[in-house]
Amino acid sequence: MKKKINVLLIALILFPMITFAQSFPEGTVPNEHNLDGAQWPRVDAEGNTHFRIYAPYAKKVQISFRGPMTREADGYWTYKSPKPEAVGFHYYQIIIDSVYVADPATKSYYGMSKWVSAIEIPEGLQYDKTQDVSHGEIRLKKYWSEMTKTWRKCYVYTPPGYDQNVNQRYPVLYLQHGGGEDETGWVFQGRMGDIMDNLIAEKKAVPMIVVMDRGYATLPGSAPAARMDNPQMNAFLAGASAPAPRPSGNSQQAAPPRPRIPSVFPELLVKEIVPMIDASFRTKTDRVNRAMAGLSMGGGHTFQVVMPNLDKFAYLGGFSGGAGPVDQIDNLYNGIFNNSQKFNQSVKLMFLSIGSEERPERVKAFADALKAKGLKNIVYYESQGSAHEWLTWRRSLREFAPLLFK
Amino acid sequence: MKKKINVLLIALILFPMITFAQSFPEGTVPNEHNLDGAQWPRVDAEGNTHFRIYAPYAKKVQISFRGPMTREADGYWTYKSPKPEAVGFHYYQIIIDSVYVADPATKSYYGMSKWVSAIEIPEGLQYDKTQDVSHGEIRLKKYWSEMTKTWRKCYVYTPPGYDQNVNQRYPVLYLQHGGGEDETGWVFQGRMGDIMDNLIAEKKAVPMIVVMDRGYATLPGSAPAARMDNPQMNAFLAGASAPAPRPSGNSQQAAPPRPRIPSVFPELLVKEIVPMIDASFRTKTDRVNRAMAGLSMGGGHTFQVVMPNLDKFAYLGGFSGGAGPVDQIDNLYNGIFNNSQKFNQSVKLMFLSIGSEERPERVKAFADALKAKGLKNIVYYESQGSAHEWLTWRRSLREFAPLLFK
Repeated sequence: MKKKINVLLIALILFPMITFAQSFPEGTVPNEHNLDGAQWPRVDAEGNTHFRIYAPYAKKVQISFRGPMTREADGYWTYKSPKPEAVGFHYYQIIIDSVYVADPATKSYYGMSKWVSAIEIPEGLQYDKTQDVSHGEIRLKKYWSEMTKTWRKCYVYTPPGYDQNVNQRYPVLYLQHGGGEDETGWVFQGRMGDIMDNLIAEKKAVPMIVVMDRGYATLPGSAPAARMDNPQMNAFLAGASAPAPRPSGNSQQAAPPRPRIPSVFPELLVKEIVPMIDASFRTKTDRVNRAMAGLSMGGGHTFQVVMPNLDKFAYLGGFSGGAGPVDQIDNLYNGIFNNSQKFNQSVKLMFLSIGSEERPERVKAFADALKAKGLKNIVYYESQGSAHEWLTWRRSLREFAPLLFK
Repeated sequence: MKKKINVLLIALILFPMITFAQSFPEGTVPNEHNLDGAQWPRVDAEGNTHFRIYAPYAKKVQISFRGPMTREADGYWTYKSPKPEAVGFHYYQIIIDSVYVADPATKSYYGMSKWVSAIEIPEGLQYDKTQDVSHGEIRLKKYWSEMTKTWRKCYVYTPPGYDQNVNQRYPVLYLQHGGGEDETGWVFQGRMGDIMDNLIAEKKAVPMIVVMDRGYATLPGSAPAARMDNPQMNAFLAGASAPAPRPSGNSQQAAPPRPRIPSVFPELLVKEIVPMIDASFRTKTDRVNRAMAGLSMGGGHTFQVVMPNLDKFAYLGGFSGGAGPVDQIDNLYNGIFNNSQKFNQSVKLMFLSIGSEERPERVKAFADALKAKGLKNIVYYESQGSAHEWLTWRRSLREFAPLLFK
């Protein structure tokens, strides 16, 4: 009896060791968005991705945005990228017999209008990592909206020392996510807390409050803004399988759904969110202490909010979004781009950024056209080697925040 | 040409309308954890669950903890519970040809050691809903741990008025999640912010700070505590499919993995987390202003922390966890249960709760045995009709918090 127990014990101890003894492709490490301890997917130093999924009863297994997986004899499906992927953060799903789902081996993030997985080709820099510096806090705050008649949530970053320096007031940056994402995007995918903590510790950026709200708002009785124009998404929400994401440009990211019925979010931000923040936090409330930036759809929101409200904002940033068409430049925003005196007095910074792998030409041309008109404080930033994804936007925040409130 | 475009346009407009025109089972509404606008899964007033998933190429589709789905002619798979499910919050996954994954139609929560879906049979009460009262904030805070040599994160609830009443100090409740969950559990699944806001608004509970940390901690060089004893989980992390969750008792929840190598979390809480919180927030630091509670594994942590540290804590709660074996009662915690004088002086509240559908007998017997020994301040609460899940724990917090710091 004792011997039997010993054999069982040894088997129990050995089983996980044998499992762990599998060999991994040389030079690979687990993807940084995996669950703690999960070995797959993996990335290597060249930027290749390696996936391995156990699905012995499936007819076909795929990784979204990528080629077919290979069925191995042992019930695993494997995939290695044919060439290195672009550096940065890439959303993905696994596709099991045509059903698009998050990979259960990774953490989940809200993007592509649902909770999905991410794999990241690391850049190996520290600016977006938690370091031994003073840390701000990120607060989840609820508030009532009279316009939408709903309870809403936002995240608010308060800089290091906010609780201690009770007589100090701070400038405010409103920072918005992209289409198909929500107020969690900058906190988790965007690592804005670490980026701001590090910039403030290095005295590159001044301590500021950063507000991240949910960029969807419709008047009572109307349907959610992000859904209405997208038949695939509507069919999915009504019970069909996940729609196949559409690759956009050179990007590995899905194109965000583009609302066609007007969202009232820009109006909500000006009329309700700014006053709520000013009433709740120790803010500086004059225009030279208020900025807004956003990525993709959030870049569009930023221009919609700031340009008609230059009495309230002095800085704006469009990260992969917000730039207008060059051939319409004279007509945009009541022709302000033709009034260099007014523009230069009002706009302390107009920052336009984009990834080199997401067709930057249009944004660069827009920035160049603004500069050619004698407009000052135009900054164009191109993120090298990155596409329409969070690495472009983390870097954009790193470049943008130091230019604010100085 | 124009006619062709019109036909296309009409088709594009009609497609989503046709999709929406599907009829839903009578009396059903979308599950409250669905993505905004997602129609499936659904629940009805009796507590039945209704699932519908589009997977035309799958051989077999299932909902975890439930019977087989039926393949319909149109490529959908459907399932209706044969009888009403227990009221409350139930984690689940969908199983596509043997692969366990989160349902992409719902929000994802960290539970069962990965990101999974949830369906809830609503109770229809307001105590855990956002109401028109003053709201506290929930702060994401980073801190360095010398014991583990890692950066760690916790959530900290500060009550309404915390920022305004800068000279007021507050008592602190440490509130822990269960096995396979993390510091996000009480914030999102547990709705602790709404529960506390509502209790404080009704003056049932005093304003307090609530700290929710991550209940996993190991010394540098040792493996993550939650994984080592669980070969199935290790195999999964090493690349196998998700392990089939084991139903526990009458519960629909998976049994949490039980670490066998000792976690240093209880020691970490006393030595590092409490001092860090006292240094960062305006806390009252005497024992009668410090409480701890937790669910399941977190209930165990609570007893491990509080009972040897009654110089630091005066209140404790074990929600579906923490109760000891009745036949060992004389030996537990240096025999304190045999010393009613010492116990009654030290413990201002020992709260033990459990769901009626998760074999409550053992916990009730333990509470009865404590009372029979002349121990005061023992409170037993049985959550009617609920199992080893978040409804039991939300209700437990609602019953426990009003008894603190009075």
